[in-house]
Amino acid sequence: QFREDAKSVKSYRLYHRPVCRWIMYMFIWVHLALALFEYPAIYGLDVEYWITMAIETVCLIAYICRFLHHKRFDVHENLWNNKRYLIVCILVALTWLDMVIYVIWYQFGFFGNHKAIRWSRPLRPVFLAAFGRHLRKAFENIKRSLPETLNVLAVFIFVVFMFSILAFKMFSASNLTYPDGSGYFVDFIDSMWDLYVLVTTANFPDVMMPAYDTNSLYAIFFISYIFICLYIFASIVLAVIYNNYKQNLKNDVKKSVLNKRKRLMKAFDILKVWRERESRYIVNRARWHKLMKIVAPNRSELQRDLLLHVLDETGEMCLGRSEFLKVADILNIELSEIKDRSLLLERYCFSCYFSKPSKLVQKIIRHPYSRNAIGVIIILNSLVMVIEDKIPVISDALEWTFLVIFLVEIILKFYVFGCRRFFSRFWNIFDFIVVNAALVTRLTNVILQAVGDTEDSRKALEFVLILRILRLMKVMEGIERFRVVIITVMNIGPSILTYGGIMFIFYYFFAIIGMELFEGKVSYNITDPSQQFCGNPLLNGSDFYALRYCKNNFNDILHAMVMMFELTVVNQWHVITAGYVQVTSKAARLYFLAFHMINVIMILNIFVAFVLEAFILEYSLSNRELMSSIERKIEELG
Amino acid sequence: QFREDAKSVKSYRLYHRPVCRWIMYMFIWVHLALALFEYPAIYGLDVEYWITMAIETVCLIAYICRFLHHKRFDVHENLWNNKRYLIVCILVALTWLDMVIYVIWYQFGFFGNHKAIRWSRPLRPVFLAAFGRHLRKAFENIKRSLPETLNVLAVFIFVVFMFSILAFKMFSASNLTYPDGSGYFVDFIDSMWDLYVLVTTANFPDVMMPAYDTNSLYAIFFISYIFICLYIFASIVLAVIYNNYKQNLKNDVKKSVLNKRKRLMKAFDILKVWRERESRYIVNRARWHKLMKIVAPNRSELQRDLLLHVLDETGEMCLGRSEFLKVADILNIELSEIKDRSLLLERYCFSCYFSKPSKLVQKIIRHPYSRNAIGVIIILNSLVMVIEDKIPVISDALEWTFLVIFLVEIILKFYVFGCRRFFSRFWNIFDFIVVNAALVTRLTNVILQAVGDTEDSRKALEFVLILRILRLMKVMEGIERFRVVIITVMNIGPSILTYGGIMFIFYYFFAIIGMELFEGKVSYNITDPSQQFCGNPLLNGSDFYALRYCKNNFNDILHAMVMMFELTVVNQWHVITAGYVQVTSKAARLYFLAFHMINVIMILNIFVAFVLEAFILEYSLSNRELMSSIERKIEELG
Repeated sequence: QFREDAKSVKSYRLYHRPVCRWIMYMFIWVHLALALFEYPAIYGLDVEYWITMAIETVCLIAYICRFLHHKRFDVHENLWNNKRYLIVCILVALTWLDMVIYVIWYQFGFFGNHKAIRWSRPLRPVFLAAFGRHLRKAFENIKRSLPETLNVLAVFIFVVFMFSILAFKMFSASNLTYPDGSGYFVDFIDSMWDLYVLVTTANFPDVMMPAYDTNSLYAIFFISYIFICLYIFASIVLAVIYNNYKQNLKNDVKKSVLNKRKRLMKAFDILKVWRERESRYIVNRARWHKLMKIVAPNRSELQRDLLLHVLDETGEMCLGRSEFLKVADILNIELSEIKDRSLLLERYCFSCYFSKPSKLVQKIIRHPYSRNAIGVIIILNSLVMVIEDKIPVISDALEWTFLVIFLVEIILKFYVFGCRRFFSRFWNIFDFIVVNAALVTRLTNVILQAVGDTEDSRKALEFVLILRILRLMKVMEGIERFRVVIITVMNIGPSILTYGGIMFIFYYFFAIIGMELFEGKVSYNITDPSQQFCGNPLLNGSDFYALRYCKNNFNDILHAMVMMFELTVVNQWHVITAGYVQVTSKAARLYFLAFHMINVIMILNIFVAFVLEAFILEYSLSNRELMSSIERKIEELG
Repeated sequence: QFREDAKSVKSYRLYHRPVCRWIMYMFIWVHLALALFEYPAIYGLDVEYWITMAIETVCLIAYICRFLHHKRFDVHENLWNNKRYLIVCILVALTWLDMVIYVIWYQFGFFGNHKAIRWSRPLRPVFLAAFGRHLRKAFENIKRSLPETLNVLAVFIFVVFMFSILAFKMFSASNLTYPDGSGYFVDFIDSMWDLYVLVTTANFPDVMMPAYDTNSLYAIFFISYIFICLYIFASIVLAVIYNNYKQNLKNDVKKSVLNKRKRLMKAFDILKVWRERESRYIVNRARWHKLMKIVAPNRSELQRDLLLHVLDETGEMCLGRSEFLKVADILNIELSEIKDRSLLLERYCFSCYFSKPSKLVQKIIRHPYSRNAIGVIIILNSLVMVIEDKIPVISDALEWTFLVIFLVEIILKFYVFGCRRFFSRFWNIFDFIVVNAALVTRLTNVILQAVGDTEDSRKALEFVLILRILRLMKVMEGIERFRVVIITVMNIGPSILTYGGIMFIFYYFFAIIGMELFEGKVSYNITDPSQQFCGNPLLNGSDFYALRYCKNNFNDILHAMVMMFELTVVNQWHVITAGYVQVTSKAARLYFLAFHMINVIMILNIFVAFVLEAFILEYSLSNRELMSSIERKIEELG
């Protein structure tokens, strides 16, 4: 879909250069980060509104530039055919409109004393989705699963509605109360709310207890409700989303493979020359090198020839059509040149390095048992960390002992493997950093304690604590049966980022809306006694205050983000909701309900579906052996 | 694996007769139900211990009889080769040993004042698994997924351990407290417990708040912990179990198909006769009928011939080897004979039934719109039920109106479709029952109110309430896009029973153990004021009492079972655990921990994996068209 003249191609290559993309992302993140400085800002970071607006304008101009850049090689004359750019344009226009309205509103106070609202802010993360390729795909995925999920959700809501009528009719006339004296299913809307919360399990078994106390048989009602709505329906929502996800994944892979083939065919047609001898079209060596210089500029002359050699099946250093189609696969393979080199010690101190005691040391260090021994010592060390407060007399001595052991281990490994091989393994680098950091902090600690500054010394130690504990992972990784699990988790890590991005988009959206709605309603201030009930007397006697949830507020973007996470975890979300209902009105429930439906039922299930499929794929790959024709050829070559 | 002489075959057929199996199940359920009557019994159901022991002995003898019966046709001479029966024998022996010990213990008081314990009771549900085929398969499924799941679980526990050290080192010296004044991460074991509970989300965000209040950055610790341990690891446990489940399912199906083929081959070899004309072995018509008389005694002569006709590809009313192999599939197909019959009205009142107004009525009733109209009325009716307390003046009149409308609908349907066709549809039968029940209760209600008994009249109305609300399902089922969801849920219902059985086995096991451990520690008695703190002063000031969880106790099997369900739902399980820790010791946590690991992490995930796979299968089946060779043949025959 792109123009193919020289100028457009040049433009295209510039557009897709990583540095251009990173600059774009920088603008997007700066744009998103403005929420830190705008009202309500992080304490101490608030700036005048025209500063953030100026920065925002720069970001918007950057988006438009990017967009105009894309237009130069886009084959569509009419911009509006590309939906994505249409959305970006509308958003930019809306944002500027919002700014103008805000300035008028703020400066001239047209609407009385009402706080001016920047209503375009929740839409900011849409730019992230519009410019990020992976995110866009994930969004399309969501869009395609939506209709079926909504069907299941509709049936689910209907079932909740049926049970609500039942509960309302059964309990509203019974005059039961909760332990705090509030009514039990007295209002139909409240009944529906309580039963919806029950699906998230957040108010179980509390919501059952009053009825269960009067008659044990009422437990059947609640148990069957939870069984149907939680265990059956939740699993089915997951099943629908997972099924769609798998289907979409299959289609995507099929489509992208087809696309790749088509483009490679086109590329071949451009590059091909006629070879008389075999009477077929080929790509010869000269053209191959030219191509590689553009496509893979980091590879050496030698590597390029090697790649050609691997691809070429006839052995004539040229590629036919079918061989050329494999070019994309082979470029994904990492090549590294290994040079045999001896250790410095070996060269300069040969007799000493190969003496009997030295050889014994080498044998010991290379033996698997020595690794196990170090593993045991690391575990012992962590156990000592747990109990060291109870044995203050020897704890310091023990810590030094462990440190010395680890130091000796590292020095011996240096000696045996040499500097280069030592640093070629991840865990060795990690050990090196941890042990040295521990040594440095412990020494500074001694100095600080000599000066008498115990508070700073404690903090200095805490700093390396996390690293030292992470060493336990090394022990776990050393055990074969656990390694598969850990490696799988590590491997799916990067792809999780995409779904983390989607979560972030919705978090940001809801956080900004939450800030507009609930900012200042609840506040946390430990020093000011007038703020007893989270700064709001309406919270007197509420669970929200009793549990000291004052810091769960929307007073700046970071607090709001933590809040979003708490709502995702779901536990106690009804208490938080009840708190905000108390300081505003029952309509506040709609906000929390929307958050739960979108972020927990939809997005979280998509996340789980993704982890499910990724793990199953990784697991089956690690257990099975994959051998493509290319890999076989590489093996043949040695 | 069975003997093939005539006597053994007869014995085998008796063994597998449904009535024999049902008697067996009856004994097992009686055996399990003994927990209702044994100490600690349901209030008012307690009987002398020798009565329950006598019944139990009868059950055990029944198991042995069943076992000896099986031995008569089992080819294994040595009983101990059959692992299942070895387990049954050991269990029976253990149970009798337990009884003897109990009698001695109880009668002579050998062990001082300690309560006598029937320690074999938790093992009772094992009989259910030993004699039920589906349950046994599900158990084997669990056993095969166990090793890999344990690997993931080990890594998970290890990560929890690492985070616990970190939390302990960070917070134990900080002197923070919870809102109720208790210490914050002061003890390492408590820290591990708190973080384990955090994985179940039950104590979030409470466990975070004290640290979060001192420094917002501590939120990062908790968020990353929950992200790794809850979202990643929980998904991975599900992935491992789901993957194993799918793999096992595939293997099972493969094995059973192979098995079926092998046995059908054997059957063919026994039944075959040599046909000269075609020079091949066949099963002729006479033998077919003889076979069918044994295998499918309920089918008529005509149906048997039809089946033969469908199977037979040559059209000579005899089956070759390959045709005979399909016999098992065709026996699964339900055949029903449809007879064309006219309505009584049509026959006896022809001119009247086909008059113009009558035809108009028929057209209206048959029209889809009339079904939609009834749907709307049903929804209106349920809405009126919600608000009728607020409009007492007209609510009675409205209810009568609705009742009359529904009655008229049913009578008209009778008129149009006739009695037989009316009752052939599930929803019609359902409507008939609901409307008539509503009519009867409403009439009795009027009578009761005339007598002045308003309490009973309310209860009589409540009785039909559930049925009336269930009619809403009919409306939902009428909408095409929701029907797939509902039908799928209905279809996987029966297979859910198997996994429900597994849950029951573990529930029973843990419930009995819980009763032995915690019986009488907590009690619920609303009338006795001396029992203020759930009958245990140790609970003074605890959350357990503040939330009025007194009825969450182990004082009889039914309460214990409800408790098991509450622990499965997980929410607030730490409060329940804390309550029992307060009345016993910290060791009580082990019981609740074991329950969570086995029932929630293992069994519940297996259940979810099952629903996932069943739903995906059902869904893809309902969207795709299946056409086996047999179905095609049936279609050809018309």
